[in-house]
Amino acid sequence: MLVGGIEAGGTKFVCAVGNEKNELLERVAFPTTTPEETLEQVFAFFDRFDLAAIGIGSFGPIDVKKDSETYGHILCTPKLAWKDFDFLGAMKARYAVPMGWTTDVNGAALGESALGAAKGMKNIMYITIGTGVGAGAIVDGKILEGIGHPEMGHILVRPHEHDHYEGFCPYHGNCLEGMAAGPSIDGRLGKAGKDVEPTDAVWDYIAYYIAQALEAYTVILRPERIVLGGGVMKVPGMLDNIKGKFTKLLADYVPVPAVDDYLVLPGLGDDAGITGAIILANEVKA
Amino acid sequence: MLVGGIEAGGTKFVCAVGNEKNELLERVAFPTTTPEETLEQVFAFFDRFDLAAIGIGSFGPIDVKKDSETYGHILCTPKLAWKDFDFLGAMKARYAVPMGWTTDVNGAALGESALGAAKGMKNIMYITIGTGVGAGAIVDGKILEGIGHPEMGHILVRPHEHDHYEGFCPYHGNCLEGMAAGPSIDGRLGKAGKDVEPTDAVWDYIAYYIAQALEAYTVILRPERIVLGGGVMKVPGMLDNIKGKFTKLLADYVPVPAVDDYLVLPGLGDDAGITGAIILANEVKA
Ligand SMILES: Nc1ncnc2c1ncn2[C@@H]1O[C@H](COP(=O)(O)OP(=O)(O)O)[C@@H](O)[C@H]1O
Ligand SMILES: Nc1ncnc2c1ncn2[C@@H]1O[C@H](COP(=O)(O)OP(=O)(O)O)[C@@H](O)[C@H]1O
Ligand SMILES: [Zn+2]
Ligand SMILES: [Zn+2]
Repeated sequence: MLVGGIEAGGTKFVCAVGNEKNELLERVAFPTTTPEETLEQVFAFFDRFDLAAIGIGSFGPIDVKKDSETYGHILCTPKLAWKDFDFLGAMKARYAVPMGWTTDVNGAALGESALGAAKGMKNIMYITIGTGVGAGAIVDGKILEGIGHPEMGHILVRPHEHDHYEGFCPYHGNCLEGMAAGPSIDGRLGKAGKDVEPTDAVWDYIAYYIAQALEAYTVILRPERIVLGGGVMKVPGMLDNIKGKFTKLLADYVPVPAVDDYLVLPGLGDDAGITGAIILANEVKA
Repeated sequence: MLVGGIEAGGTKFVCAVGNEKNELLERVAFPTTTPEETLEQVFAFFDRFDLAAIGIGSFGPIDVKKDSETYGHILCTPKLAWKDFDFLGAMKARYAVPMGWTTDVNGAALGESALGAAKGMKNIMYITIGTGVGAGAIVDGKILEGIGHPEMGHILVRPHEHDHYEGFCPYHGNCLEGMAAGPSIDGRLGKAGKDVEPTDAVWDYIAYYIAQALEAYTVILRPERIVLGGGVMKVPGMLDNIKGKFTKLLADYVPVPAVDDYLVLPGLGDDAGITGAIILANEVKA
């Protein structure tokens, strides 16, 4: 029985079909434009298959509360064409199959916990530091959510004593996302991260903010492993820098696995999200 | 069928028996001394009843992982007589009934979610700001834990610009506990919290740190309500001070209930922990 998966990113959609073993059999990717245009391409791909279920990991914020009137909608996003769009409703109108619905980062967390760098673990986190900072957690084998999905990228951090950047988050200024996501590099130095020397002090600042956030996630959620992805993690030495700062900040207050086992890069690379969507589909399949 | 409950605090033990409706029928309290002396008093109380189960909410850190060799033990506590003590084992050696085992703050969270200020809600948090800062969360109706129980009191906070106190946490210095728990008041002013004017600036600092932590818990866990207890919450105006600062820090980034519904004082007062222990007992009852 085939299932479908969508990793709906703010800049790119990936659609795939997979089997019961969560293997990706066929896939397609295209830029995110308007909902109408983009869904047309989604339909063109999925119409070719007889699917038992579809899993969707979407950019957000999205409504994940099943009892809500706007369940399945994209909420108040800066991508105005998608604001209030009933994404899940549009999918259900086209395909009468069970559907799983969660955030893109939750999808990646699910993928990494099932088949990636945190394989077989029931309490893990996935965080991406890219254009923004997003994170999802698996707690006791299930995606963590409360009255909505987490927005863990917006926890507040202590400014580094030498970092005078005020942060780019329109809500908080210097929250984690405002201080550590990609645009903060452009904001400080007027150039893109990939053009900045790996020895630049900015990476120290960013590692410090990420380490603080990891300390908070650790004492709150007590995960067994944290998987770190996104463009900023591609900077040479970044993971080691974060490990050192995290260890110092946690100060052995709670036991965690050896830091090399605890803080790791993704195992599925760019496939974490789409794999998670396929897993979700298999989970909701009748 | 009667069940037993223990709220095992660092300074005081409360034991009670309750019924299926989680009503407390009889109780006793005594100071926490050595494990031997203290358990003798526990046994003297419970021996009088025929109990179907016992629930224990204990001061920590404790081992809550069922597959661990030291499951049920108290771990590395500054109360040296209790360090590595097999609390649950000692109880099981005396009573052959199912036992629930969690932290004191998780017990209080359970009590408040079942019968207190967060009655009927499936995603809530309980935090106490007293001699230390402890917190527990109920996620989807279940006590939150990962590879261990949360230690949410030790998240890092931004120092207030006018507060030059370095914090008393032996691990982190100025984490939330180090900056906001009761001893920080003595540390700053050389006198106990109850002797400090409600207009003193110290309460502003403390409210600011608590508000930061609540912002973090909010974006990570998305609870429906947060119950705040402990001695520091008894300061006149403290809750309102926190509400104002929290609202400003969150900056409407994620929707939360109206702040008066979201941040509340305990509904069970000092009975939250012991009530939670009775609820836990009823949950594990065969
Ligand atoms: N090699 C690199 N070195 C440093 N920063 C990078 C690198 N590659 C990407 N980035 C940063 O990561 C951001 C993009 O993150 P990415 O995870 O690829 O995208 P998105 O978050 O949109 O999915 C950019 O803003 C850029 O600053
Ligand atoms: N009325 C009060 N005003 C200010 N602070 C108080 C008040 N009562 C207690 N405290 C503070 O709370 C701490 C004790 O907290 P409490 O929750 O009662 O105990 P515990 O955490 O040990 O269970 C003390 O350190 C004291 O500073
Ligand atoms: Zn922010
Ligand atoms: Zn601390």
